[in-house]
Amino acid sequence: MAAVADDLVRALGPRVVVDPDRMTPWTRDQSPFSTSGAPAAVVRAASTDHVVVTLQTATRHGTPVVTRGAGSGLSGGANALDGCIVLALDEMDAIVDIDVARRTATVQPGVINADLGRAAAEHGLRYTPDPGSRDISSIGGNIATNAGGMSCCKYGVTADHVAALTAVLPDGTVIRTGGPLRKNVTGLDLTRLLVGSEGTLAVVVEATVWLRPVVADESTIVAMFASLEAAMRAVVAVTGETTPSAVELMDRTTVAAVNAMTGMAIDATAEAVLLMTYDGPAAAGEVVAGEVVVVAEGATEVFRTDDRAEGAELMNARRLALPALERLGSILLDDVGVPVDRLPRMVADIQAVAARHDVTIGTFGHAADGNLHPTIIFDAQDVAERDRAQAAFTDIVRAALAHGGTASGEHGIGSLKLPFVTEMYGAAEIDLMRRIKAAFDPDGLMNPGRAY
Amino acid sequence: MAAVADDLVRALGPRVVVDPDRMTPWTRDQSPFSTSGAPAAVVRAASTDHVVVTLQTATRHGTPVVTRGAGSGLSGGANALDGCIVLALDEMDAIVDIDVARRTATVQPGVINADLGRAAAEHGLRYTPDPGSRDISSIGGNIATNAGGMSCCKYGVTADHVAALTAVLPDGTVIRTGGPLRKNVTGLDLTRLLVGSEGTLAVVVEATVWLRPVVADESTIVAMFASLEAAMRAVVAVTGETTPSAVELMDRTTVAAVNAMTGMAIDATAEAVLLMTYDGPAAAGEVVAGEVVVVAEGATEVFRTDDRAEGAELMNARRLALPALERLGSILLDDVGVPVDRLPRMVADIQAVAARHDVTIGTFGHAADGNLHPTIIFDAQDVAERDRAQAAFTDIVRAALAHGGTASGEHGIGSLKLPFVTEMYGAAEIDLMRRIKAAFDPDGLMNPGRAY
Repeated sequence: MAAVADDLVRALGPRVVVDPDRMTPWTRDQSPFSTSGAPAAVVRAASTDHVVVTLQTATRHGTPVVTRGAGSGLSGGANALDGCIVLALDEMDAIVDIDVARRTATVQPGVINADLGRAAAEHGLRYTPDPGSRDISSIGGNIATNAGGMSCCKYGVTADHVAALTAVLPDGTVIRTGGPLRKNVTGLDLTRLLVGSEGTLAVVVEATVWLRPVVADESTIVAMFASLEAAMRAVVAVTGETTPSAVELMDRTTVAAVNAMTGMAIDATAEAVLLMTYDGPAAAGEVVAGEVVVVAEGATEVFRTDDRAEGAELMNARRLALPALERLGSILLDDVGVPVDRLPRMVADIQAVAARHDVTIGTFGHAADGNLHPTIIFDAQDVAERDRAQAAFTDIVRAALAHGGTASGEHGIGSLKLPFVTEMYGAAEIDLMRRIKAAFDPDGLMNPGRAY
Repeated sequence: MAAVADDLVRALGPRVVVDPDRMTPWTRDQSPFSTSGAPAAVVRAASTDHVVVTLQTATRHGTPVVTRGAGSGLSGGANALDGCIVLALDEMDAIVDIDVARRTATVQPGVINADLGRAAAEHGLRYTPDPGSRDISSIGGNIATNAGGMSCCKYGVTADHVAALTAVLPDGTVIRTGGPLRKNVTGLDLTRLLVGSEGTLAVVVEATVWLRPVVADESTIVAMFASLEAAMRAVVAVTGETTPSAVELMDRTTVAAVNAMTGMAIDATAEAVLLMTYDGPAAAGEVVAGEVVVVAEGATEVFRTDDRAEGAELMNARRLALPALERLGSILLDDVGVPVDRLPRMVADIQAVAARHDVTIGTFGHAADGNLHPTIIFDAQDVAERDRAQAAFTDIVRAALAHGGTASGEHGIGSLKLPFVTEMYGAAEIDLMRRIKAAFDPDGLMNPGRAY
């Protein structure tokens, strides 16, 4: 047993797993094709004190720390490194407080997104960030990756909902950032710096997040298009002229996969389907305007409802896009983002990539944010096809970057997308990020080699 | 002439002012009672190159740099330091681009907020951050202080509107942060870190900001209350149940001052007036609901209109609160923020402070954000009264901090409020901020001793 593991066992006893066989469940996130190593120990922290002791021990031994929430990440950011400590926070899952007057929740990092949503609903409130993983991902992981979702086009991403954090620095110092304040310009914005930092700066042990009132009425519009480009032109128009609470894309490949998985009968002859939601009843001016816009932009068929059950069924079908595509073969899921006006050209690029590399790509995603998940489906046993899939993956990211876009809209860089960071930002920006990291983590122990 | 001034003159010729008498206009912002020094030189930059050369020269000589926008700040953050270079950006005032499809504007830092608003309006768009200084303050200064305003309760502060920045580090390196992307989780959020950093990290030379569509209809509700506490309880209720685009407070002292200045006849018998605006016509459900809530919360008189001219006249009266109070004597303007649910207790505290120190305080502000501007009016010639005013100022900030609030909601810490930063955050957080500063500015030349 490594000396660091020995020290951890002495300090934290049954909270520490050191048997290599028993550590397996904590060594990887859900990303395919990412590498992972063998940790020296897994610490299942149940309190801030456990986190402090773990980080102090790591610093004393110079041992890297990979912090882990629910392990639902898609970028290899929580994969173990050889000889590291995996610091698992899933048992720190208390909802400490819901303050109705203030409309905040204070939670430990292991709270599952959907569990927070249910707890808020008991008070007529909701937590709006709604990543596809909301049933399995934790608030701590959502904060680490600045997770997105469907409703971000109207309500913002995770970062827009974090009011205050308590975090532990690698030397064991506990810091508190921000506050439940609508305006606060005292000091540098440490809260926002920690959100999306992918475990490279500090360990968040408590978060205060903003809640919103539950919406009384919600309408859903389904619109079919004869081409992906036409659908994307409609997205540009409808987000310019109205304020939908979601505009989700499924291409024909995705729709067919979802139909096959669910037994639903969404029109799979259209090249693209847009699912749009609006706060308000179906007769509301904005909802009607949304339908008028997509029809003017060439929708071949449109359906509008404010039946919540019907709307939920459609959006749930969209939420099943990824598992449905996974039934077709091995997948490489991308997470690119482009300026919204570049969406028509980006989907044309994705189709060209599929043709050039002779691979099937199912594209779905949060079109209103310019955030697409082109998903390459391939046979992992076929080495040549696997190589073509990986080449296609790279070309899609490069196409997004060429449009002034990002390598990751909402999943994080982790280890999987690290090569693209230096293609998006220049050396000066990356150097600066690393110097900022050193301000938190002078020994470079926090998830080293990840994110930037 | 100092050696650094000599070098600047050699490199930048007529862009440099070194005559002490001629430098006076660039040595102070608009904060009263803040200290300022005598600069070695003023550089009136007209390009990014001028900024680069200035910073490189400063680094070579180890000379502090105080960056300055329009000079409308209220916290002493742009006041000259002895022997510093004042880097004035007011001549870098080009609107580089307005991208209608993308709904962004790219501007140089010297562009005046209201000028950007007028340029956007030509495209049916608007720039929503609306600090009280919008007619005189620059976007660069707004970014440096993370400026707020009236509409932030619905549309967010300056930070929520900055998509991308180009900035110059003290060694002359030009960095680019962010992008016109609704979702982007690649790397650390350098954009957000620069916003609100008050010139302590780098010099912003270009910003891409988000615009929004112009709102077709706007309604205004005026509500009178028999006490400040009742008005604040109404704010808690009305922001919990509806989404106003502004909820502004004026107390009786402020209303009387505004009436005296403008000849208007707003009811000055009420202890507090709330001015609320909503997007939408006066008959819209939410606007009616807003009126119902304030009546239920004890408004003694309510008036509702969607006449834009009438609404604008009322909001302009509120915008004149500060100049109107300035006519009554010397003023000390505070800028505290508290969690919204603490507003009733905070206004009670302000009244207790006024009584305890025997000073007049006119309180106005952005109540929906918990952001108040209690303004102490006093006779600066009367030493005892001046001391009492300063004691009251301190007690108001301490009261806000005791409510879990902030020393500055939107004006910045500058030099004036520096003592309170260490009362809001602990030593660990301040140390961390200073280490982050060092990552940008290893020699400590950027607005040293300000903000944190």
